[in-house]
Amino acid sequence: MEEDCVFCREVIGRRNASIITENDMAISFMDHAPVEEGHILVIPKKHFRDIFTVDEQYYLEVHKMARKLAPIVMKATGADGMNIGQNNGRCANQVVFHYHVHVIPRFCERRLSWDRKGTTAEELERVAKTIKSQLCSVT
Amino acid sequence: MEEDCVFCREVIGRRNASIITENDMAISFMDHAPVEEGHILVIPKKHFRDIFTVDEQYYLEVHKMARKLAPIVMKATGADGMNIGQNNGRCANQVVFHYHVHVIPRFCERRLSWDRKGTTAEELERVAKTIKSQLCSVT
Repeated sequence: MEEDCVFCREVIGRRNASIITENDMAISFMDHAPVEEGHILVIPKKHFRDIFTVDEQYYLEVHKMARKLAPIVMKATGADGMNIGQNNGRCANQVVFHYHVHVIPRFCERRLSWDRKGTTAEELERVAKTIKSQLCSVT
Repeated sequence: MEEDCVFCREVIGRRNASIITENDMAISFMDHAPVEEGHILVIPKKHFRDIFTVDEQYYLEVHKMARKLAPIVMKATGADGMNIGQNNGRCANQVVFHYHVHVIPRFCERRLSWDRKGTTAEELERVAKTIKSQLCSVT
């Protein structure tokens, strides 16, 4: 745990996020500044900065979770496609320095963009609920 | 093997690519239209369209290889950061419909862009050689 890491402190510690699913090693939650509705993050429950330092077991658990959630997020959002992304270093657009995988649903009627959208905690909670209802019907 | 899939036919079959490393399940090679110098792809050796259909064991082998190559590509190219990306569906910018992970080194002096650059087979082979020399010194 790193006290000055927002994911360690707010998500893993205080659970101050719209959490989708979790196990011993990984946790997924709504990105608070989504690129598209349904944009989620999957992170290890232990602090690692990036792909160069993440422990292999945590890394594999995070990617297993991303793969399991991908079709569920697609179904819940009615998306047409999906980007999976993971950034390392400021010049690669990493903003939070705790390893995280972006799962971003895409829609054919909208231009592919990486701009962050404004949203509210209530809206994130509503989308999280829709995704979780799909999760329950699948697992 | 899918005869109309360029990765199955040209990369896995004819080995018509600048190959970096491979094992029974995964193979990595230079992207022939790189976003940055040192842009590589990691793919399963069996044909799967996307994250929704890829077999878990192949998926994990591909991602293990991407993680192992990441620091090697960084060192070989002198990059400052790295994007890992995987696209599913035409509207998410998937062009070849065989599951593939992009490993893209990034440089602070250049603006983050996803535009493809022109290059030559000789240039790709030169970069592949540099990466492979780092690989040998690490493993």
